Amino acid sequence: MGSKSDLNIMQDAADVLKELGVPYEITVVSAHRTPDRMFTYAREAAGRGLKVIIAGAGGAAHLPGMVASLTHLPVIGVPVKSSNSIDGWDSILSILQMPNGIPVATVALNAAKNAGILAAQILSTADDQIVQNLIAFKENLKKKVEESALEIRG
Amino acid sequence: MGSKSDLNIMQDAADVLKELGVPYEITVVSAHRTPDRMFTYAREAAGRGLKVIIAGAGGAAHLPGMVASLTHLPVIGVPVKSSNSIDGWDSILSILQMPNGIPVATVALNAAKNAGILAAQILSTADDQIVQNLIAFKENLKKKVEESALEIRG
Amino acid sequence: MGSKSDLNIMQDAADVLKELGVPYEITVVSAHRTPDRMFTYAREAAGRGLKVIIAGAGGAAHLPGMVASLTHLPVIGVPVKSSNSIDGWDSILSILQMPNGIPVATVALNAAKNAGILAAQILSTADDQIVQNLIAFKENLKKKVEESALEIRG
Amino acid sequence: MGSKSDLNIMQDAADVLKELGVPYEITVVSAHRTPDRMFTYAREAAGRGLKVIIAGAGGAAHLPGMVASLTHLPVIGVPVKSSNSIDGWDSILSILQMPNGIPVATVALNAAKNAGILAAQILSTADDQIVQNLIAFKENLKKKVEESALEIRG
Amino acid sequence: MGSKSDLNIMQDAADVLKELGVPYEITVVSAHRTPDRMFTYAREAAGRGLKVIIAGAGGAAHLPGMVASLTHLPVIGVPVKSSNSIDGWDSILSILQMPNGIPVATVALNAAKNAGILAAQILSTADDQIVQNLIAFKENLKKKVEESALEIRG
Amino acid sequence: MGSKSDLNIMQDAADVLKELGVPYEITVVSAHRTPDRMFTYAREAAGRGLKVIIAGAGGAAHLPGMVASLTHLPVIGVPVKSSNSIDGWDSILSILQMPNGIPVATVALNAAKNAGILAAQILSTADDQIVQNLIAFKENLKKKVEESALEIRG
Amino acid sequence: MGSKSDLNIMQDAADVLKELGVPYEITVVSAHRTPDRMFTYAREAAGRGLKVIIAGAGGAAHLPGMVASLTHLPVIGVPVKSSNSIDGWDSILSILQMPNGIPVATVALNAAKNAGILAAQILSTADDQIVQNLIAFKENLKKKVEESALEIRG
Amino acid sequence: MGSKSDLNIMQDAADVLKELGVPYEITVVSAHRTPDRMFTYAREAAGRGLKVIIAGAGGAAHLPGMVASLTHLPVIGVPVKSSNSIDGWDSILSILQMPNGIPVATVALNAAKNAGILAAQILSTADDQIVQNLIAFKENLKKKVEESALEIRG
Repeated sequence: MGSKSDLNIMQDAADVLKELGVPYEITVVSAHRTPDRMFTYAREAAGRGLKVIIAGAGGAAHLPGMVASLTHLPVIGVPVKSSNSIDGWDSILSILQMPNGIPVATVALNAAKNAGILAAQILSTADDQIVQNLIAFKENLKKKVEESALEIRG
Repeated sequence: MGSKSDLNIMQDAADVLKELGVPYEITVVSAHRTPDRMFTYAREAAGRGLKVIIAGAGGAAHLPGMVASLTHLPVIGVPVKSSNSIDGWDSILSILQMPNGIPVATVALNAAKNAGILAAQILSTADDQIVQNLIAFKENLKKKVEESALEIRG
Repeated sequence: MGSKSDLNIMQDAADVLKELGVPYEITVVSAHRTPDRMFTYAREAAGRGLKVIIAGAGGAAHLPGMVASLTHLPVIGVPVKSSNSIDGWDSILSILQMPNGIPVATVALNAAKNAGILAAQILSTADDQIVQNLIAFKENLKKKVEESALEIRG
Repeated sequence: MGSKSDLNIMQDAADVLKELGVPYEITVVSAHRTPDRMFTYAREAAGRGLKVIIAGAGGAAHLPGMVASLTHLPVIGVPVKSSNSIDGWDSILSILQMPNGIPVATVALNAAKNAGILAAQILSTADDQIVQNLIAFKENLKKKVEESALEIRG
Repeated sequence: MGSKSDLNIMQDAADVLKELGVPYEITVVSAHRTPDRMFTYAREAAGRGLKVIIAGAGGAAHLPGMVASLTHLPVIGVPVKSSNSIDGWDSILSILQMPNGIPVATVALNAAKNAGILAAQILSTADDQIVQNLIAFKENLKKKVEESALEIRG
Repeated sequence: MGSKSDLNIMQDAADVLKELGVPYEITVVSAHRTPDRMFTYAREAAGRGLKVIIAGAGGAAHLPGMVASLTHLPVIGVPVKSSNSIDGWDSILSILQMPNGIPVATVALNAAKNAGILAAQILSTADDQIVQNLIAFKENLKKKVEESALEIRG
Repeated sequence: MGSKSDLNIMQDAADVLKELGVPYEITVVSAHRTPDRMFTYAREAAGRGLKVIIAGAGGAAHLPGMVASLTHLPVIGVPVKSSNSIDGWDSILSILQMPNGIPVATVALNAAKNAGILAAQILSTADDQIVQNLIAFKENLKKKVEESALEIRG
Repeated sequence: MGSKSDLNIMQDAADVLKELGVPYEITVVSAHRTPDRMFTYAREAAGRGLKVIIAGAGGAAHLPGMVASLTHLPVIGVPVKSSNSIDGWDSILSILQMPNGIPVATVALNAAKNAGILAAQILSTADDQIVQNLIAFKENLKKKVEESALEIRG
């Protein structure tokens, strides 16, 4: 993530990855304040065995796109509605609208949880245990809705 | 894709997948006009051996999100600026802003090429040949910019 | 409605339907978390004797449009400004901008009350008692404004 | 419709109503240029036996909402992207965002065809022949998609 | 104004008119809930000796435009950011974007004070006393800024 | 107007003023390129006998607001969708959103015709001949709609 | 700045200029309420030895652009999200979208701090001490991120 | 600039710099396709004697902000409305909304000419010849408007 202040949002990604049985690391890398650190982090990621990178940032959010430019790994971008953001539009557009050649897999505003699930889905393409965990996760979502329906019927 | 009229956009995904050595199939499935077909397609995708689904649609674009609700596979959404779209905003927001639990990996407006590259990146997490193809692809992007720079210097 | 958290908005529809003498049922059906339940609900609605369906949802709100794709009944969509919505724009556009062939009768943001009135208007095309109730309802709106005008004149 | 220049859009409503076996009349009534005519038209509509009113207008589009204020009939609003409109946003918001008490059933930008289908759906709540026509119409939509799918497979 | 709830905004117009020596009346007229009252009010305004009408409303704000369609008097529109408004955009666009032939003199969001000043400016084209009052008013605005500048210099 | 390139839009104001029997002058004054000229023009306007000023400009359109700051005359602003404008939003917002104390009577995007009519309405508050011209103008608008209605009925 | 109420935002510019060793003055000049004062201030700025002007304003923010029209000095504009602003869009567009010939160096919404840094960067093009201060400032930004990263690693 | 396709826009900057007597170099550096080249270019710019950098890019435009993160020189950003841009909003927001600490001096959409003038203004703070050129440039703008005014008067 681009700033420690994004932690309250980005923690959701960590939590759901744990729930889905996917190991992860979490750190702060700022595209604008620590460009060298970002370069090194992104360039070394594949070699260190990372498989997917989740990058969250707000405002003119360059971190996800710049990381994507520096690695061949899939990069998931989380637009954060930070205090310096215009209702989130800047965060969304500066992550989503990447030029041809350098995709960022963008999720909804503040949707770090979905970034975690998407990372698990990506890894599940070669890991049956994560497939099982995802299927159980989906089943659980369904059950909660069904319980709500029962509650409302009274 | 949701309509045959999206083909001129979505063909870019097919072309880049071919270039990156990733086999694919392409078809028309409409969330709104053929909901049963969509259900069957999405539900059977994993069993048929598909690993990633790219879904492109415009306007109130429900196809990517609905497919994501029906499978545990990663789903990539391409917002298409179709003729019934309001400058693409409807396509983007109805694909991107998925609720917690059901992510769609959204790419830029009309960016079917990036959807194809992202699909390759996802598969590359377990396929070294695709990694090599992606690295070569990135190298090629770089060369074209360097040639432009030389041209302009004259 | 797509989530129990929409109840505080959607209750307005129930209340005004009661006021206008229209029987109704209310439940939770999520397009993304319970797609099968949505399919069954929408497909069986006409057979169970339902005449109109009101569907409220927020963010990438696919419920109204998907229900409309699964039934020939008129479907009224209520864009909900839920917590994961971008000022309501995503909810509005993903409900309103349906493709040709599958309309959703969209009302204003959070306007569940208007959805209820519209449902009553639809049923009133074949029910004179509801016509009388709607005329009385409109008369009442007028009286409240006239009372305001008197109050301000002092 | 509010202006003769909207006819090229609004004709779609007439065409689909004919296709679905619903009789209709079509005329020009301007909220701003012929307010008396609008008053008379809307006030007399129910008495003349009309069951549903479709009103299309662009820019600061007041026709659908004003007609809805003058009748208890269901009113369907078609936001038209006319030449004096700002990308259609003004048309959409001034039709959709009606205050509590006076709903307008809004369809997508320029979606007069969907307005016609919605009108048929409303009337079908008390007319089995229209139900059959709507089911056939939906079946036809499905077939066209399936044909597209076959064509693309080649 | 369209609703008593707009009074906390619209009172600013009354206050500044008093300050500028312009007599006025204030009432509630709803385009959607009391269309007859609006018709009568607007049609009789010129005959009763009114010279300018200020109309404030929010959401799909039809009051200013409809009043303008019913009188030849100049009409000033105040877009109100009411509770059912989408950040004020609906109020602004449905007041501002009037078709050719029927202007509404629109002021800023919630700027009832400016509506009052504009009404005084209009009347001042034939009333020298109001001219003097406006010049004094402008002088006073200037003085307050100069005092701020002195304060900050300390 | 702020630039000679706005003439194709602003000519509509001149034409309708002529039609309504209101004498006028037309010139180019740029807030940004000729600030002194703008100062002199606006400061001397009232003394020269002008009663109303219509100012049209595009992009960051400061002309209407700056003229309003320099005179007590009513100022009508026409947002022009010039080539350097972002779909007209910049023109609209930088004319409409004036601070308290300095109103600009804003009309729709490119609506120079309505600016002319509004100017005539303002002058009509003290000129019965213009009142008669405005009433005839409105009558003519009505007739054109009624002719359209007859044409469509066939 | 255009109003004393902008001081809580604009103070950040003063603070960072002090930190970077750049002398400054701060005052209130309103384009709309004190146009003469603005003229004099902007016209005399270069002669008094000022090198850069930072102008902050909200709503229809004309101060930065008008100052730029009156001086050849570089002008930095700070869009302020003041109480009369529509989510800041009006402030941004009326500062940013200047016509060709009269640039304003616009920074992010409320980003007075960045305006101060940019002013220092401009002056640093001819002042090595400020260069050193800027390099130290950047170094400090980097250190804070690195400390955050260490903290999170625990 | 980020792509050779931006040259038709960015050439305006070169032309006006020449006109104002400011030497310059022009090249293509892509943040996303040639991140190393961008790093080297930005890091070495000050050492090579560059005083100001103008960076133009479209879509998710990261070039200006990333260059600003890598140098203490003032960086001017030109949002380009490229083919992959959503009406320019993405370009503007991803350049303008930089976080505190790393300003980019943003000019209007496609306003490369203004970027060139701003660069000259920055250099003019220590170069009297450029001051004279800027004053002559401004004088010329004024003359063209005055000629337009004469032309229109006829």
